[in-house]
Amino acid sequence: MYYYNPWNLDYKQPFGAVKVGQAILLKFDANQTQVEVKCIIRRDFGKRYEFLMSRDESGFFTVTIPFDENAGLYFYYFEILEGSDWEQNKRFYGSSGIGGEGLLYTNENDIKPYQLTVFEKEDKAPAWYRDAVFYQIFPDRFHNGNENGQVSHPKPNSFIYGTKSDTPFYVKEENGDIARWDFFGGNLRGIINKIPYLKELGINAIYLNPIFSGTSNHRYDTNDYLKIDSMLGTQEDFQELINLLHQEQMHLVLDGVFSHVGKNSLYFNISGDYGDDEGAAKNPDSPYFDWFKFENYPFDYKSWWGIKDLPEIDKDNESFRDFIYGRKNSVLSKWNDLGIDGWRLDVADELPDSFIKGIRENLDRYSEKILIGEIWEDASNKISYGTRRKYILGGSLQACMNYPFRDLIINLLNGNRSCQDVAHQLMTLQENYPKDIFYNNLNNLGTHDTERILTMVGKENLPIAVSLLFVLPGIPCIYYGDEAGLSGGKDPENRKYFPWDDISPEIYDYYKSWTKKRLLENSLKEGEFSSFYSDRLLGILRYTDSEVFVEVINPSEDEIKIDYSEITFLQKFDFMPKLKDLLTEQVISGKSNIDLKIER
Amino acid sequence: MYYYNPWNLDYKQPFGAVKVGQAILLKFDANQTQVEVKCIIRRDFGKRYEFLMSRDESGFFTVTIPFDENAGLYFYYFEILEGSDWEQNKRFYGSSGIGGEGLLYTNENDIKPYQLTVFEKEDKAPAWYRDAVFYQIFPDRFHNGNENGQVSHPKPNSFIYGTKSDTPFYVKEENGDIARWDFFGGNLRGIINKIPYLKELGINAIYLNPIFSGTSNHRYDTNDYLKIDSMLGTQEDFQELINLLHQEQMHLVLDGVFSHVGKNSLYFNISGDYGDDEGAAKNPDSPYFDWFKFENYPFDYKSWWGIKDLPEIDKDNESFRDFIYGRKNSVLSKWNDLGIDGWRLDVADELPDSFIKGIRENLDRYSEKILIGEIWEDASNKISYGTRRKYILGGSLQACMNYPFRDLIINLLNGNRSCQDVAHQLMTLQENYPKDIFYNNLNNLGTHDTERILTMVGKENLPIAVSLLFVLPGIPCIYYGDEAGLSGGKDPENRKYFPWDDISPEIYDYYKSWTKKRLLENSLKEGEFSSFYSDRLLGILRYTDSEVFVEVINPSEDEIKIDYSEITFLQKFDFMPKLKDLLTEQVISGKSNIDLKIER
Repeated sequence: MYYYNPWNLDYKQPFGAVKVGQAILLKFDANQTQVEVKCIIRRDFGKRYEFLMSRDESGFFTVTIPFDENAGLYFYYFEILEGSDWEQNKRFYGSSGIGGEGLLYTNENDIKPYQLTVFEKEDKAPAWYRDAVFYQIFPDRFHNGNENGQVSHPKPNSFIYGTKSDTPFYVKEENGDIARWDFFGGNLRGIINKIPYLKELGINAIYLNPIFSGTSNHRYDTNDYLKIDSMLGTQEDFQELINLLHQEQMHLVLDGVFSHVGKNSLYFNISGDYGDDEGAAKNPDSPYFDWFKFENYPFDYKSWWGIKDLPEIDKDNESFRDFIYGRKNSVLSKWNDLGIDGWRLDVADELPDSFIKGIRENLDRYSEKILIGEIWEDASNKISYGTRRKYILGGSLQACMNYPFRDLIINLLNGNRSCQDVAHQLMTLQENYPKDIFYNNLNNLGTHDTERILTMVGKENLPIAVSLLFVLPGIPCIYYGDEAGLSGGKDPENRKYFPWDDISPEIYDYYKSWTKKRLLENSLKEGEFSSFYSDRLLGILRYTDSEVFVEVINPSEDEIKIDYSEITFLQKFDFMPKLKDLLTEQVISGKSNIDLKIER
Repeated sequence: MYYYNPWNLDYKQPFGAVKVGQAILLKFDANQTQVEVKCIIRRDFGKRYEFLMSRDESGFFTVTIPFDENAGLYFYYFEILEGSDWEQNKRFYGSSGIGGEGLLYTNENDIKPYQLTVFEKEDKAPAWYRDAVFYQIFPDRFHNGNENGQVSHPKPNSFIYGTKSDTPFYVKEENGDIARWDFFGGNLRGIINKIPYLKELGINAIYLNPIFSGTSNHRYDTNDYLKIDSMLGTQEDFQELINLLHQEQMHLVLDGVFSHVGKNSLYFNISGDYGDDEGAAKNPDSPYFDWFKFENYPFDYKSWWGIKDLPEIDKDNESFRDFIYGRKNSVLSKWNDLGIDGWRLDVADELPDSFIKGIRENLDRYSEKILIGEIWEDASNKISYGTRRKYILGGSLQACMNYPFRDLIINLLNGNRSCQDVAHQLMTLQENYPKDIFYNNLNNLGTHDTERILTMVGKENLPIAVSLLFVLPGIPCIYYGDEAGLSGGKDPENRKYFPWDDISPEIYDYYKSWTKKRLLENSLKEGEFSSFYSDRLLGILRYTDSEVFVEVINPSEDEIKIDYSEITFLQKFDFMPKLKDLLTEQVISGKSNIDLKIER
């Protein structure tokens, strides 16, 4: 009786998010005669607007709405006035909760509106980034490149693992505090030595976990933003790494940790490592004093999530901003000038929008640098600290770490989400994100902050997970060692040392086949995305003007012969007949996937 | 009115313990006419005997008592019957609690009797041992002798300290169990390389903490009694160490840990490291099964002090005894044949007397090997597990680790015991021990099981503590690093790595001056012992037929000029007049000590 589906161009144009200044055309199908339809739009945390829709020649109610105001989120649904003057009936049509086809509501308060993201400007990523296959390296755990294998400059009161195959372990005091940090001794020289390995694997970009001077093995407790940690090597080693990577047309992204510093840092210096008179905690006249918030000087201070190792920075402090990205010899400028290709912003939710914009402005002075934010949820509608974030609306982040994709993949393979559900969720994310962001997101199956994919889905499901990493829109990023068959639950198990002497050939070859495919297939790098599903199959489409890459996933245990009539597509395409020919009677083994291609 | 003092030869001959078959002559002074005196003797946990004493020409009541029965402890006191037939009064004279001059008691139940130790046979230590200055080495913490300083064969799931100056730390699970063992990586090559250092310091014997294959850093959890731990080196390294030491006229004593083994040992093998079918916990048909006591096979077993890492051995098991010391290729024989010079028996209290005797019999097949027992108290009257121990009565232990001396020294210097008290306690220990044992005891100011002496007494008291280590009867043993100025409380702080780059020259030189004195002065090696005291001074005498070495200790803060009339000697000597000349008007600074010598 009533129908609307924003994924279908017959109902909404353009698809998905729009840019400020663009208009959207909405069409609502109401095959009733006595009816009036309005589109109700609410600005995020703001005013409500009503747009009366008019019936067009084909019977649809239509309206064209210009979005020439501020960027941000808008929410909309339809109000339907049925009946005659004497007997009116108000009904509502809104989203089912995950986009696409909606639902009819009788009570306005129950409606789940559709989200419309209005972004500030397009944000194309550099070309190298869109073509990248990333590899994330946790430096202490990848490779020790010293000739004798010794650990360079071990820190006082730290532990070195007895053997490289040891399972990582947090050494704690009885009260739960970290007592000693534990190291394997991986370093920059180790990464340099393994560039041929990475190249062979098909990697062309590296995301490095923090490498600046720190106390811990993860170095998220920065002690000096301007120094390479001495266990990892020297600035010369780092310059050599950049140069060698660039020689190989490979790129490097660093981890920018600006929400907090280490308590033993040059800036805070609570233990006096940097001198008795240096740093905020030792000297109230320190130039860094205003960066921090002391409740009771010096031992009671605001810290990140209450972790006293990590004094929190006041990111609104101008001198801090100047130090990080403003001044000529700022932290960002120093490392950008050395030639790195971008930054991954740690805990972006903890950074004010204006701070992130400041970082972006610094990067924009260079060409071809990428800015990726650590955000765990759908970044288009993330609220942090009571505020709707604007970091993907243009001129800010260009990409997010795509944990929502990881969650969908794992839930699909563990049987917690149906193929239909996953297909819908993928489309919803596509709809919500500005297009560039959606295709720029850095996809992962696991990071230093999550369980490893092998542990999450098991070996039998691993091939499907890996195939999804490479066919889904966004930039694939392999967490070091996943390709070697490393397993491990949450931190610290997910931070084992790379098993150089025990690489699983089967898993390695599978990863390698996908990196090669990704690099060869333009449709995987540049193609538009859509999804389809049947009861037990999930399909991914990546299509360009000239070709369509089709991935069909069978997460079930059983061999399945495709019955085309059982497939639901979430969007309509001109190549549907070819798809039908292609898919009909294809056979897919259980726990398996097939790649198909058609010319348009 | 009544007087007896066994430290004075006028009252008891011979001094101290006697051998089975010897008689003692007791004299009791009672300057009363109407009196009868009996000596009451009780055998340890045994019968009571009465010996009527008769008055001799000089008025003393005397009796000669033959001890031709079993060795063991005897306790004695005097019963005095006063008055006429019509008005009798019974009184008693016994020890004040610490030997020497006694007390009059009215109630027999209150009496503290004198102890008389009757030993089986004399037990002379080898000549090299009596001349030794020992050095105790905890192998992981002394020196890494590898050319590149790398740690040899680190164990799986263990930690290596980041820097050599790290403070040791137990890495525990939340439930308190050890999670990972921590190593610095000292090894046999390190000891070999430091022989010149030890020689220069004046060391001529080494006591090594365990070196056989183990899991922990202390290796008291033996995994294989027949193998050198691979982190420490090879059997060839060990042979080289022995040979080099012997070339330098130095000797080596090993730690014999026979009360328990490691749970991952070849013998118990609970984790299956030695194969799925080996060891008592994996195979009830294992030849080692009978060595252990299972409550509930295999996980519930008797362990040392309830520490599940250390399954306890049934030391009465014949196959275990045969393995340790009986058979041709027994554990003891293997290492004895390689040339070691003796054993220190770990937790001797946990070993049956017959087991210790078996070990001794093995050693007696060789010449010149020493057997030292770990006992923490006065070993002459130690009761363990409800039984009075016989391990120092001959043919068993030749020496004990002398923790009672350490306690006295620390308590003197911390002001918890007076000079008088310490002088008395020293004499009491001398009286209780068979003479050879007393002079064979291995003296220490601290071991791997105690706080370091520097931490216990502070730097200002250290010189006195060290001087006492070297002048008291027994064999001095320096705990590695004490001479370098290492500090540390209880385990693990007392097991720091030797500070090769930060040796305190002052402390080192002081130790060295005493090792040299010890080696030069016959009276310190062979002299008899006695003590004296005044209100604030403690004196130690070591005298031979030809000379007397006199050490006077001033533990007070003040400079003291000796007033001879205030000194109390605990025994009488023919050289008293010379002592008087020597001591009179000597001045001793506060917290200081002086060495004096006289010819007899």
